[in-house]
Amino acid sequence: MAGHYAAQTYGDTPVGPGARPGIVVVDFQLGFTDPQYPLGGAPLIERAVANTAKLLEAARRLGVPVANCNTCYMDAREMPYWKISGVRETFLYDHPSVAFDPRIYDKSYDLTVTKKGPSILFETGVVSYFIKQRVDTVIVTGCTTSGCIRATTIDSFANRFRTLVPEDCVGDHEEQPHKDNLRDVGVRYADIVDLDFCLAYFEDLRQRNAE
Amino acid sequence: MAGHYAAQTYGDTPVGPGARPGIVVVDFQLGFTDPQYPLGGAPLIERAVANTAKLLEAARRLGVPVANCNTCYMDAREMPYWKISGVRETFLYDHPSVAFDPRIYDKSYDLTVTKKGPSILFETGVVSYFIKQRVDTVIVTGCTTSGCIRATTIDSFANRFRTLVPEDCVGDHEEQPHKDNLRDVGVRYADIVDLDFCLAYFEDLRQRNAE
Amino acid sequence: MAGHYAAQTYGDTPVGPGARPGIVVVDFQLGFTDPQYPLGGAPLIERAVANTAKLLEAARRLGVPVANCNTCYMDAREMPYWKISGVRETFLYDHPSVAFDPRIYDKSYDLTVTKKGPSILFETGVVSYFIKQRVDTVIVTGCTTSGCIRATTIDSFANRFRTLVPEDCVGDHEEQPHKDNLRDVGVRYADIVDLDFCLAYFEDLRQRNAE
Amino acid sequence: MAGHYAAQTYGDTPVGPGARPGIVVVDFQLGFTDPQYPLGGAPLIERAVANTAKLLEAARRLGVPVANCNTCYMDAREMPYWKISGVRETFLYDHPSVAFDPRIYDKSYDLTVTKKGPSILFETGVVSYFIKQRVDTVIVTGCTTSGCIRATTIDSFANRFRTLVPEDCVGDHEEQPHKDNLRDVGVRYADIVDLDFCLAYFEDLRQRNAE
Repeated sequence: MAGHYAAQTYGDTPVGPGARPGIVVVDFQLGFTDPQYPLGGAPLIERAVANTAKLLEAARRLGVPVANCNTCYMDAREMPYWKISGVRETFLYDHPSVAFDPRIYDKSYDLTVTKKGPSILFETGVVSYFIKQRVDTVIVTGCTTSGCIRATTIDSFANRFRTLVPEDCVGDHEEQPHKDNLRDVGVRYADIVDLDFCLAYFEDLRQRNAE
Repeated sequence: MAGHYAAQTYGDTPVGPGARPGIVVVDFQLGFTDPQYPLGGAPLIERAVANTAKLLEAARRLGVPVANCNTCYMDAREMPYWKISGVRETFLYDHPSVAFDPRIYDKSYDLTVTKKGPSILFETGVVSYFIKQRVDTVIVTGCTTSGCIRATTIDSFANRFRTLVPEDCVGDHEEQPHKDNLRDVGVRYADIVDLDFCLAYFEDLRQRNAE
Repeated sequence: MAGHYAAQTYGDTPVGPGARPGIVVVDFQLGFTDPQYPLGGAPLIERAVANTAKLLEAARRLGVPVANCNTCYMDAREMPYWKISGVRETFLYDHPSVAFDPRIYDKSYDLTVTKKGPSILFETGVVSYFIKQRVDTVIVTGCTTSGCIRATTIDSFANRFRTLVPEDCVGDHEEQPHKDNLRDVGVRYADIVDLDFCLAYFEDLRQRNAE
Repeated sequence: MAGHYAAQTYGDTPVGPGARPGIVVVDFQLGFTDPQYPLGGAPLIERAVANTAKLLEAARRLGVPVANCNTCYMDAREMPYWKISGVRETFLYDHPSVAFDPRIYDKSYDLTVTKKGPSILFETGVVSYFIKQRVDTVIVTGCTTSGCIRATTIDSFANRFRTLVPEDCVGDHEEQPHKDNLRDVGVRYADIVDLDFCLAYFEDLRQRNAE
């Protein structure tokens, strides 16, 4: 970030990956990943699904904990004050669009939660799961960058995990909000990396564990 | 918001104010509000301090609950992984820059908390205080729009309060991130309003209570 | 409570019911309520189920929010460090004993959550639901008094709700721990009442709403 | 625990200590530890202070993270619905009885928090501090066993830490509630150990680290 922010030391201290990663997969439900639905199928989200599938394959092979979520509600009484009628009308338990995209979901491996707010770490038990799994580094994947990814990244930081956001594993309906939000979190809370960085990090962990 | 977002119904459902407001004042500590400090004195933040002072005067007269916070730590062990050396080196208990700006602080009226993450509602007891005060609507003030205001707004929404962000009571080091973040939260989580809207809302409550 | 506690003013200040109750129903899953299961069918729990069913009938008629939970896990990886092999081996998603007892469950009315810790208010979204429903008073029902009821009562207090525990709507495997825990919370956190008290409270609210 | 509980497998699975302990010290403020105050100076609490001082000396030498808390409020508006007038009238910021007992407090080493509810892990940031310090095992010390120690033990378990309660490092106004609560948590959530066990555990960690 140029200008005032850089002059004010924002972004000058990298986080760095830790000893024990965990992955969160945020809202890759069909409503966002399947073009047949009104909020579905944006190119950046499609790219993120494909890359996250590769990341998860490597993670599960290595035994890295994975938490996978969708967002849905019993009815309007339960919802926060969403300003999006498309969310209010379809993010419901019995709606087909809330199913997990099969490309990124392994029911027998992943911790599965249904979240109610933007962040997968808010009131879901995922933080406690990561405590038990001794996770110190959270890798954030999913959508949308300017919505639930932003919220999740903040919560990962606030819970004092090291936080990595692989930019090609998170997606948005549009490119500008995607970039704006990576900019904001990248100078404050998280390292912005990519799929290849994460795969190399896993390979490094694998070799160290094998020694 | 134009483009894909508007077509996808983002922002089409206003929140609206509720029956019992509460105000949060985020990080108006001297480090952000006094030009003598490296992160201090941006014009948008200066404007936000002046307007928030007016808002708080009306709020306290009406008995509206106020929670006021700064951010600081005992030492580096306690901090989340901040990427900003200016924060790491000065947001410390004994540093003069963490004092509350006197223009917005009333020690005998405001609930005072020291937060550790970006959001004033994260692990501070403010949510519980608002539950006891029966608050249903949170008005977000403070700085920075692209940092702790964004985080606070998300948490207010996630805790299922009605959320109002008066745009002239929140500030940032630069204008673009200020606008970008109001855009993101305004189509999802909160109504973007202004000081005059909030003052009229308070006046309306006062008249209803007087009846 | 006699002795030191009473001399030290414990229990001298009643809580009193508020303007807007909500009910939590804790762990009336078949494993605790059906005698065919190893932890099932204790007389105090049976009594609590019968009384809670009456309480819920009145509550639903009046529109009082209800949150109903069971406790179960995907597998041992997800569990906290339970010291009870009966819990570790049967509180699992696919085990028949985790089904809600039909006497106390209304799927279309109750907010339904699966909790992971002892308290129904820990990381479940129920607190946020109650914020949205403007609940100020939590009525605690379920089992066991010396386990999840104790934990829930503490959390209701800590979240700064008014807390009522109708003693004939909570149950335990044995009478002594039941009494001990009502004693502890009754001098600190909650009013110990009974079904009839709650029904009269609801009737009083109904009449006031009708005026 | 005999009777139904033992027959139902309660307490049959020990927790065991983990790789990285942290200590919480709960409410050893003068109001509980100094006989000049109405709630102060019970023999079990005096014993707990003396033993906890020894535990902390060993812990600080080894670099074990310590979180130390008191409980107090700005005024009655901020309090949960305490049923104890002695708490309501004296647990206030400016009251001398809320000072930490100097025997157990090291301001430059311990993370210091002021909690508002019974548990030191509720809304205080201590969980996040322990995440950053990679703690997997929480040792609970302080008072009272039937109040804030019970609450803290539940929260440690719910957050999925391994939990140890050294019984001679926790105290109560009376012996019966002390025993009752150790019984309840010992069959469900935590290993009941003692000071010597913890010192041996620390010594074992020291030797392993030295290798």
